[in-house]
Amino acid sequence: MHTPFRRPHKIHFSECDPAGIVFYPQYFVLFNDLIESWVDALLPESGYHGVIGGRRLGMPTVRLEVDFKAISRMGDQVWLELQVVRLGARSLTLAWRCTGSDGEVRMAATQTIVMTSLETHGSVPIPDDLRAAIERGLPEGA
Amino acid sequence: MHTPFRRPHKIHFSECDPAGIVFYPQYFVLFNDLIESWVDALLPESGYHGVIGGRRLGMPTVRLEVDFKAISRMGDQVWLELQVVRLGARSLTLAWRCTGSDGEVRMAATQTIVMTSLETHGSVPIPDDLRAAIERGLPEGA
Amino acid sequence: MHTPFRRPHKIHFSECDPAGIVFYPQYFVLFNDLIESWVDALLPESGYHGVIGGRRLGMPTVRLEVDFKAISRMGDQVWLELQVVRLGARSLTLAWRCTGSDGEVRMAATQTIVMTSLETHGSVPIPDDLRAAIERGLPEGA
Amino acid sequence: MHTPFRRPHKIHFSECDPAGIVFYPQYFVLFNDLIESWVDALLPESGYHGVIGGRRLGMPTVRLEVDFKAISRMGDQVWLELQVVRLGARSLTLAWRCTGSDGEVRMAATQTIVMTSLETHGSVPIPDDLRAAIERGLPEGA
Repeated sequence: MHTPFRRPHKIHFSECDPAGIVFYPQYFVLFNDLIESWVDALLPESGYHGVIGGRRLGMPTVRLEVDFKAISRMGDQVWLELQVVRLGARSLTLAWRCTGSDGEVRMAATQTIVMTSLETHGSVPIPDDLRAAIERGLPEGA
Repeated sequence: MHTPFRRPHKIHFSECDPAGIVFYPQYFVLFNDLIESWVDALLPESGYHGVIGGRRLGMPTVRLEVDFKAISRMGDQVWLELQVVRLGARSLTLAWRCTGSDGEVRMAATQTIVMTSLETHGSVPIPDDLRAAIERGLPEGA
Repeated sequence: MHTPFRRPHKIHFSECDPAGIVFYPQYFVLFNDLIESWVDALLPESGYHGVIGGRRLGMPTVRLEVDFKAISRMGDQVWLELQVVRLGARSLTLAWRCTGSDGEVRMAATQTIVMTSLETHGSVPIPDDLRAAIERGLPEGA
Repeated sequence: MHTPFRRPHKIHFSECDPAGIVFYPQYFVLFNDLIESWVDALLPESGYHGVIGGRRLGMPTVRLEVDFKAISRMGDQVWLELQVVRLGARSLTLAWRCTGSDGEVRMAATQTIVMTSLETHGSVPIPDDLRAAIERGLPEGA
């Protein structure tokens, strides 16, 4: 239904550990940055920072399931990809994939995010403009 | 069967995001550091760095399931805890918990780690001394 | 005049880079955490998080001079130390040192911090209780 | 003499602290990534990872002087820029600048890097191909 949102990424020295491969917590930073770019593409006027900083809404993760299938080394060109697999009233579920330039899946995950108020940290409905943009899918070429 | 290994931790400013709560990828850094302290306690002569740097073995994560149940704020005193729930020939499964000082579970996870050679990144048997130390459980007072 | 504030630290895997040595930006995280512990010791009732989160004051760095003199490897036991070298009306200057267990200086720095309002990000006077605690030096045994 | 090497960057949520501004150690990660991109542009065949991983050379920082002049907030569009200001036999000095989209300098620094062997961690001459590429300056359009 929804087109995946994907960005190329080159694995940096700063993301790697003494084994010369991605330090796995860095994957979560990379995908957090990808979600930010996705919300920027969905809501170009406010952007992710406008949702968080302006409207004082949070998008914390409540559930993660992750499989690390193959290593990524410093300098590897990878694709980072997300796709909406469920859109609820106050939460959504994303599927993530990191693939090598040969298409091999390095890491796959399912993440559930809940929309919250940063004042109360309680759940709130997903804002209408964000919901509508997700339902429309991404603009051509995004 | 196995006693949990636990350490107190105070949530640092450096671990928090613009919402003033733990940036969730930091939990994985905290638990990676906890595993390091656990291996240091199990193998006081070599330590975790001796396993990784000296013997050139890796302990990458292959599977994670995580539930974030409550937020942790800057300055909170928490307990970080791990327990062995499965010990295989080449892999092991740990249960993690982060609890507040009131005992409330903030985050719980199950992590599967595989032992690898850092030369080939293929799996290898868990070394005998580490296996024996895990089977014995932790020394009194650790 | 002021006693140094120091804490032991073991260099973690998570702090090291593909060369197996501390990734230098991690030193700044370690010293930020040290400053947090120092303010916690100076103001045990509010703590650092009470200054930042409660009183909405910031302590941004405005100037840093750093010399990296020797490498620190994964597993090394080091001392992290800070000392007040200047206490102004709205700013202060700290000297940092990271030394190996043999006393060798690994890294030395001078950092100037300014006290700010987190509402305006403009400078404000150092609060009286923090100033008094710094002037008294640290409690015995801290 | 040398053209600056610059890249646009949008300040991510993951780079910001509970004050909603860049957590300053993140600047050092951003500039480390910039140096990596610069070496990739200078040596397109080996890239930075080929220097570090393939030839087993390190480029550790030995001296840093940094002025933080203005804050950067989540979502800000900035320019990250580096320029060679000294090229020695075994070391080089870079000038860094982070500027806002209005040209305001947010942060400026001078960094001295030494070329080392990752086997001995002692200094070695800058490799001829890297030296030649730096002397030529960057290719048009880089």
